[in-house]
Amino acid sequence: MAKWMWYPGSLELYHGMLLHNRRTHAKTYADGSVLSNYYYPMWRVDSPKHNSSLFKEATITEGEIFEFYSNADLACAVIDGQSYPVGARIELSPGKHKIYVRGFKSDGFPAYFCKGNVFASDRSWLVSEGDDKALRHAGDSSLYTEPCDNPLEFKFSYKRIEPVSVTRVDGGILWDFGKESFGIISIFGEDTEVLLSLGESYEEAIDYRFANCVINAKIKDGVFKSESCAFRYIFIPNSDKEYSIFADLEYLSLENKGAFRCDNDEINALWDICAYTMLLNSREAFFDGIKRDRWVWSGDAYQSYFVNYYLANDRDIIKRSIRMLRGGDPITKHINTICDYTFYWIISIWEYYFHSADKDFIADIYPDMLDMWKFIESRLDKDGMYDRKPDDWVFIDWSTFDSNGPMCAEQMLLARANECMAKCASLNGDDAMSKRCEEQYKFIKDEINKRYWCEEKGAFIDDYKSSKRNVTRHANIFALLFDYTSEERKESIIKNVIFNDNVTKITTPYFEFFELDAMCQIGNFKYMTDMLHSYWGGMLRLGATTIWEEFDPTKSGIEHYEMYGGKYEKSLCHAWGASPIYLLGKYALGVRPTDVGYSSYEIKPNLMCFGEIEGKVPTPTSEIYVKVKDGAVSVLSGIDGGTLVIGDRRYSIEKDKMLTVEI
Amino acid sequence: MAKWMWYPGSLELYHGMLLHNRRTHAKTYADGSVLSNYYYPMWRVDSPKHNSSLFKEATITEGEIFEFYSNADLACAVIDGQSYPVGARIELSPGKHKIYVRGFKSDGFPAYFCKGNVFASDRSWLVSEGDDKALRHAGDSSLYTEPCDNPLEFKFSYKRIEPVSVTRVDGGILWDFGKESFGIISIFGEDTEVLLSLGESYEEAIDYRFANCVINAKIKDGVFKSESCAFRYIFIPNSDKEYSIFADLEYLSLENKGAFRCDNDEINALWDICAYTMLLNSREAFFDGIKRDRWVWSGDAYQSYFVNYYLANDRDIIKRSIRMLRGGDPITKHINTICDYTFYWIISIWEYYFHSADKDFIADIYPDMLDMWKFIESRLDKDGMYDRKPDDWVFIDWSTFDSNGPMCAEQMLLARANECMAKCASLNGDDAMSKRCEEQYKFIKDEINKRYWCEEKGAFIDDYKSSKRNVTRHANIFALLFDYTSEERKESIIKNVIFNDNVTKITTPYFEFFELDAMCQIGNFKYMTDMLHSYWGGMLRLGATTIWEEFDPTKSGIEHYEMYGGKYEKSLCHAWGASPIYLLGKYALGVRPTDVGYSSYEIKPNLMCFGEIEGKVPTPTSEIYVKVKDGAVSVLSGIDGGTLVIGDRRYSIEKDKMLTVEI
Repeated sequence: MAKWMWYPGSLELYHGMLLHNRRTHAKTYADGSVLSNYYYPMWRVDSPKHNSSLFKEATITEGEIFEFYSNADLACAVIDGQSYPVGARIELSPGKHKIYVRGFKSDGFPAYFCKGNVFASDRSWLVSEGDDKALRHAGDSSLYTEPCDNPLEFKFSYKRIEPVSVTRVDGGILWDFGKESFGIISIFGEDTEVLLSLGESYEEAIDYRFANCVINAKIKDGVFKSESCAFRYIFIPNSDKEYSIFADLEYLSLENKGAFRCDNDEINALWDICAYTMLLNSREAFFDGIKRDRWVWSGDAYQSYFVNYYLANDRDIIKRSIRMLRGGDPITKHINTICDYTFYWIISIWEYYFHSADKDFIADIYPDMLDMWKFIESRLDKDGMYDRKPDDWVFIDWSTFDSNGPMCAEQMLLARANECMAKCASLNGDDAMSKRCEEQYKFIKDEINKRYWCEEKGAFIDDYKSSKRNVTRHANIFALLFDYTSEERKESIIKNVIFNDNVTKITTPYFEFFELDAMCQIGNFKYMTDMLHSYWGGMLRLGATTIWEEFDPTKSGIEHYEMYGGKYEKSLCHAWGASPIYLLGKYALGVRPTDVGYSSYEIKPNLMCFGEIEGKVPTPTSEIYVKVKDGAVSVLSGIDGGTLVIGDRRYSIEKDKMLTVEI
Repeated sequence: MAKWMWYPGSLELYHGMLLHNRRTHAKTYADGSVLSNYYYPMWRVDSPKHNSSLFKEATITEGEIFEFYSNADLACAVIDGQSYPVGARIELSPGKHKIYVRGFKSDGFPAYFCKGNVFASDRSWLVSEGDDKALRHAGDSSLYTEPCDNPLEFKFSYKRIEPVSVTRVDGGILWDFGKESFGIISIFGEDTEVLLSLGESYEEAIDYRFANCVINAKIKDGVFKSESCAFRYIFIPNSDKEYSIFADLEYLSLENKGAFRCDNDEINALWDICAYTMLLNSREAFFDGIKRDRWVWSGDAYQSYFVNYYLANDRDIIKRSIRMLRGGDPITKHINTICDYTFYWIISIWEYYFHSADKDFIADIYPDMLDMWKFIESRLDKDGMYDRKPDDWVFIDWSTFDSNGPMCAEQMLLARANECMAKCASLNGDDAMSKRCEEQYKFIKDEINKRYWCEEKGAFIDDYKSSKRNVTRHANIFALLFDYTSEERKESIIKNVIFNDNVTKITTPYFEFFELDAMCQIGNFKYMTDMLHSYWGGMLRLGATTIWEEFDPTKSGIEHYEMYGGKYEKSLCHAWGASPIYLLGKYALGVRPTDVGYSSYEIKPNLMCFGEIEGKVPTPTSEIYVKVKDGAVSVLSGIDGGTLVIGDRRYSIEKDKMLTVEI
């Protein structure tokens, strides 16, 4: 089947360029006017190439008809040295042919659609710089497979939604859509200019001078349609006129193949809310949140990939996110300017391969990985460790670290990035690179254990050069999660860090992902389910319809919405909160691949605190059903290679055949 | 005065992208149809950044009004931390202010125009990658200085021109505009589709199946207007209908400050034709030729710079050409894929500085030079010399060389590039780099003399590794021109190469530039004037109205128009033929700077074969008039620092005062 094809990365750079320029921020001016202003991206935003040249050479045994389409301003197909315009329909005789398609598009990027058999357009075409030398494979996407498709328009789905209530508040009108939403607002009324104040919370919408997003709507011919935006509440202040409003929910049509149910309603509700949070943030790529940034952040996306493996298991959105985050050349700063986010980017590619077995993508992205790895290496300190550079944002988490020097958590990620790079290099036959990364990985892991371990505190400290000997959870969680220290030290970490209330608690769902993953990995499931109830449950009990960017149970009222110095700056629909889907799928249903792409896998169900559980986990080609109820485990899998593990007992799973075992 | 400003290079990359995609090539298909097809550029074409962020920080002693304009799709000005939309008019109080202007434009590039005093937009603003770190100065241009200007539209001038004759030929209609032209053709007649066959020559126009450029014109509502194109003749084949045609000559409005007249009519006509050739090829940048490529080639442009110093002396077109040729990052191939063209690019920047004293531009382009120099260095062989790489086009000239190994002419240019790079580095305070380049320059010059000199032939050979010991003019000409060998060897070169008819003659005006420059430099003016008469005069006697890409006096009829395997592929209006303007200005009028930007200069007039000469040479700020007539030299100069040299006599020239000396 033919697909639209283009210079690889063009689709992602183009839509990434558009989405990174869609952020707005409202401001109230001295004259009382409230205006939606353009908010400039915080990092270099790259654009796709406006010229491209792709070719394919092949010998065909049967004749075929070759038809050439392009969206370009100017394009031609050069078939065996003869130039043809767009729309050409050429009979290719049996034998060897070489076809170039070439084009220029000033706004957007040139894409090509070729009907044919062997010469149908897809990834098998090669890219050149205008000459005969093949650089890499063409880019394509399963979203664009028809001649009438336009890769410059992102393929969203739409669903009409109506407000659940309209009320008059403070002399204005307030619509409530019942839950967090993202889409195009239509407002109908007399022709006029009207201010729409959007709120993820009731308080944000009516406090319109401080709302994060407003729309300066000009109703013309009785109607105004907005750009896509995030809202639950819409408020028109100071108005006695009549308006009606509806919205079109804008979303990417992904099937949630994963599922989870248990006998606890709060956990079931939480799972659904996490899935809805993911739906809203799954777009051109994985967003951080839909209200404020609407940007693609590598660390945030990294976690969304893991949730995706247990929910929609859509490869395309992961590949798009990875390419978009990579950006163009030359690399001059870390991804999103954050050093840890560059490390996650490398790690995520190996994890993607491990979950998908998609070797093509690893081959396609490998040159881009190499440049990223060289960038990382060029900025290590004389000891071969990561140390803060003036341009770098050392993030790790919204927490307080002893972070002036080389931070332990960063070395953990650097080691893991090298470990993953070594595997990807090996997969691409680059053995020299694989060896080098493997050595670096081991070296850094050893240095971490030498330099950062504090016997007195029984934990890894933030900075070995600092006299503060400060302990935070983060590096210690990585040590557990990546298995980067001895069993003895792990025991010590659990006791002296995880269960030590004097070590500052995690306040972001972001880092809870890592903490709970680590704790589940070492079998402490109670820690996880307690957190689901206390931490995530805490948000639900405050009426959350999607998961928040940050949650501090000690705060109250609109304190919960404050962040970054703004009254309502906090995102109330943040993808990094959806990790319960991953955690419950991997550790309660207990499904995880033990080799690449589920070529072998284990099902090790665990009831945890629940009376019964039931659910599904998607694999690359099928789904795995698991139920634990009434003292029995039932599993049904669409693929070979599975083992059911119950305590010390191991059972081979036969494909497409229900296996039930008593526990 | 405020100017529009942008991320540096954006103007050049944008218009470069457009112009490199404007080439067409006609093709006759099996069904008899003749179609104008898009011709894809031969190298990577880069585009401007679609996002940019510029800032300026300054303390103002008086208040000023700051007004903000932008062409961007989305833009904001952030003044002392507060965001304002396009159109904002803000009073700045005395004191310190920091203003960012930021924008996104999907098609083209974002540009900004700020009214103000200290904060008026221009090069003094700095560029960042979205953060506070200054990368370099903003780009601006003296072409765009009003709020209503649009930097996305190139500022050409237009002049209505009419055909000088209309005749019926071969059942079709032929219009002759009397001389080579470039512009927009308007054709009036009945609504229909009609083929316009364009010809630089009569033969090309009427031989429409083989013409290089055709237009598939759709006359609608009685009129069709073409894109800009090159033509002298326009032919509509097989038509008995009535049409009328005129054209709008499209050109860059540059004042020809240089002038030359002598008592030889052919030379005067030649000078005018050279100036007209330059006019037609002086556009967004210096073109190679207006019919076929309409591209910017570094070696071609290099020569146009020298002609420009003696004609319009327009700095902006040189700066635009240099930036356009540089392209974007990362550098993966030589400029235009040609190694010698990369070397000329480096050399041209020093020459530009030497003629203009424009230190700002050298500072602005220096980071781009550094990357280019690193690219060159990364591809030298183990001996530190240039050797052909698989991707490289080793050009030098349209001639036959022994060019499989490291070519002597390339080492000459490599040495000269290092010599110029050393000076530019020193100018920018980069002493380490300057020292390194100086050493490399001396090393390569020595190696050339060691490796390539052949005592037996008394000349430099093409390739020291080859057993052929082949001698061509090119490297030997460079040795004379750059003064890279001993006086003794120079004598030998003149005897054994230049005046040796067994060494293949130069057939391109391109390399005649270097040969004649070298011969004039060593005082052999007769060689130059003989060539003007025989070679350039040969074209004129064949009816040329502009200078050709190549000329071989031994050919006849339409053989003259053949090139690259096409009957009419040869460009008949090629910028590289305009060197007589440079040669006559520098060696007949005898005007040349002896220090940067004419801070000191010499006038050393030479009658050559002429009875009298008179003319002008532009300097950065003024003009120098020279007349040699009736046994006296008269000079009048608008600047200080001049010396008139007549034989052994030297006379100081007083500014604005005519000096007349008998010879």
